[in-house]
Amino acid sequence: MHYKYDKIGVMLKYKNKTNIPEGFLFSTGEAAIKKPGRKDIALIYSKTEANIAGAFTTNRVKAAPVKLAMGKIASGKGQAIIVNSGNANACTGRKGMKDAAETVLLTAKNLKINPSLVYVCSTGVIGTPLPMEKIKAAIPILTANLGRHGLRDTASAIMTTDTFPKIITKKIKIKNRTGTMTGICKGAGMIAPNMATMLCFILTDIAVEKRTLSKALKDSVRKSFNRITIDGDMSTNDTALIMANGMLGNSEIKEHSAFYKIFKNTLDEITYGLSRLIVKDGEGATKLIAIEVNGAADEKEAEKAAFSVANSKLVKTAIYGNDSNWGRIMAALGYSGIKFNDEKVSIHLGNIKVVNKGTGTGKDADANNYLKNNSEVSILINLNKGAASAKVLTCDLTEEYIRVNAEYRT
Amino acid sequence: MHYKYDKIGVMLKYKNKTNIPEGFLFSTGEAAIKKPGRKDIALIYSKTEANIAGAFTTNRVKAAPVKLAMGKIASGKGQAIIVNSGNANACTGRKGMKDAAETVLLTAKNLKINPSLVYVCSTGVIGTPLPMEKIKAAIPILTANLGRHGLRDTASAIMTTDTFPKIITKKIKIKNRTGTMTGICKGAGMIAPNMATMLCFILTDIAVEKRTLSKALKDSVRKSFNRITIDGDMSTNDTALIMANGMLGNSEIKEHSAFYKIFKNTLDEITYGLSRLIVKDGEGATKLIAIEVNGAADEKEAEKAAFSVANSKLVKTAIYGNDSNWGRIMAALGYSGIKFNDEKVSIHLGNIKVVNKGTGTGKDADANNYLKNNSEVSILINLNKGAASAKVLTCDLTEEYIRVNAEYRT
Repeated sequence: MHYKYDKIGVMLKYKNKTNIPEGFLFSTGEAAIKKPGRKDIALIYSKTEANIAGAFTTNRVKAAPVKLAMGKIASGKGQAIIVNSGNANACTGRKGMKDAAETVLLTAKNLKINPSLVYVCSTGVIGTPLPMEKIKAAIPILTANLGRHGLRDTASAIMTTDTFPKIITKKIKIKNRTGTMTGICKGAGMIAPNMATMLCFILTDIAVEKRTLSKALKDSVRKSFNRITIDGDMSTNDTALIMANGMLGNSEIKEHSAFYKIFKNTLDEITYGLSRLIVKDGEGATKLIAIEVNGAADEKEAEKAAFSVANSKLVKTAIYGNDSNWGRIMAALGYSGIKFNDEKVSIHLGNIKVVNKGTGTGKDADANNYLKNNSEVSILINLNKGAASAKVLTCDLTEEYIRVNAEYRT
Repeated sequence: MHYKYDKIGVMLKYKNKTNIPEGFLFSTGEAAIKKPGRKDIALIYSKTEANIAGAFTTNRVKAAPVKLAMGKIASGKGQAIIVNSGNANACTGRKGMKDAAETVLLTAKNLKINPSLVYVCSTGVIGTPLPMEKIKAAIPILTANLGRHGLRDTASAIMTTDTFPKIITKKIKIKNRTGTMTGICKGAGMIAPNMATMLCFILTDIAVEKRTLSKALKDSVRKSFNRITIDGDMSTNDTALIMANGMLGNSEIKEHSAFYKIFKNTLDEITYGLSRLIVKDGEGATKLIAIEVNGAADEKEAEKAAFSVANSKLVKTAIYGNDSNWGRIMAALGYSGIKFNDEKVSIHLGNIKVVNKGTGTGKDADANNYLKNNSEVSILINLNKGAASAKVLTCDLTEEYIRVNAEYRT
């Protein structure tokens, strides 16, 4: 099951340039970083200086471009993002830092802007030095070819094991103007809790004050990209950047502005939508699994329980096999580290109650059919303890995941 | 790769009854608990009352037999263990507790011993009530057939997805007498850190004082069964029991006795050897992976880092694919939660140094060959921070694991 389109707005009219935020230009190229035959480098550029905010991996081992971006994001100003796939520029030592810095400098020089406004992001294999000659050769071509039509190509160029590009665009009405917000991202593997996110770039022509932008992004990421898991492995390169260039001409949105709520809701829709697409495109996945834990003492506890179930290989393989083996869900709750009384737990698969007060209801056959007939399934757990809840998205674990990852570098 | 025999002593002359501790009798039967066609129930009996100690799962959701055993183990006395495979008697509510208690009572009645001396253990599918009529019918047959020859059949009867029975026997010389210690266990899936162990039964004719027995078992389990991981899923049923019936006639070993050390060393060899066999027989495994972390600040930190690498699906699939993708090892160290400087880390695969000071040495091709040519591989990580170390055993993650677990209940 490789989704090409999706109900929630992926690639919504992306070819129509009226659906691209004002003032943003795109360009892609083939630098043959891992192997030739596909576009693997992209440039995103705003005609005017934009406010920028970021969220980054919490992995202690951080790629060179992440370290570089974390060092400059506090300025809140940005104008260009250069991204390559095929090589993560992680665990590459001093050379890696030098390469990332050089990429920024060269891009800035070609764009004739201050290097402090240029961000670089990398994704792909860890531990191999960047092929800098190829990247240096690509930069002038990228800057020369910037245009309004390259959004979809950009979303494709940043992919690694993704099977489809991920784009969501939303319109926002602010008084008599209509702003646009577009998010693109890549995911597929090394997707796990407690990280910032995958590579994700959100662009908008709405004017948003820089601290407000940063706060909104962090909160939005917490409930979207930080609530998905594919394999429990956390990347060294995860980065989400948002650029707001203000070309809509609205008065700058601040946290207590009238239009903050609509801006934040739109941002949340885009980050949640993109994280859902990442899970759908999980390596080898055949099913999207939504795990909701209710009746927890607090949100943190609910999240912990949901992640324990979401990361269980036994739960994920059971769902793949259309087997409503709820005992594995109970076991995963049991080792999650939260306190609860297993004799109070109820579990639904879809609408079918399979566990009541910690024991089976005998509806496993119905639940097996539910799993068999749905590519998006829900596991609803009630701890019957408190009032808090959290929802985590994951996918099943299949032979294809093994194949993709056993052969990744070959 | 399904090991039938092993260098470290599995099934060492198990058919020779001189290699079975004095005074222990065995018996197995077919109760068709999950399906007919194999022996799935076993009884272990000591002719005399023995000292007994146990270690149990730390999963919050505990199977009925585990709850029952935990409630009586403090007495330190035991004489019989009845075990079934095919059904875990977990998440079975009051009926589950009643069934476990009834199994104990019936076994005691047939053996004409006090029920406080009988332990019951179950392993298999969670959430299905035990077929008590079948178990009740099996008990008198089991007790009637007790004999000295059933050790191997007992080790087979307790298997679930295991592909071979796991038995290790060691001799211990105490003055002019030679004692025997035999351990059997089952594993294969739901093997994870921080649990007590799988089902494991250790029998010895050496006399050991009961508190000494308990303390020795707990320490031994900590460094063996608690340092292996197959899939990161922790079972609801894990139990290790040791029975020392004293039939050797030695004076009871206490913690400060002259023979404590040889007793403890032998116990450690058996628990480590059995846990190694469990990992070798990991569901779908083709490779045994030993992960040793050195240069940590303390043992706990070393253990945490080693488990993070051992549980990484990306590391496990890379090893399966003979791909020395050490970047995934670095990433797993990075999200392990321990503090370290990635620019000080070195990593060896076997004798090949693939990472020096956090970056690649360019020896990936050699390392790929090392992986290709060995079914037992070692990952040696040095954090270059302190002097503590820990070693964790795991196996690779393969398509076969997915198949076994997607189809487990069918």
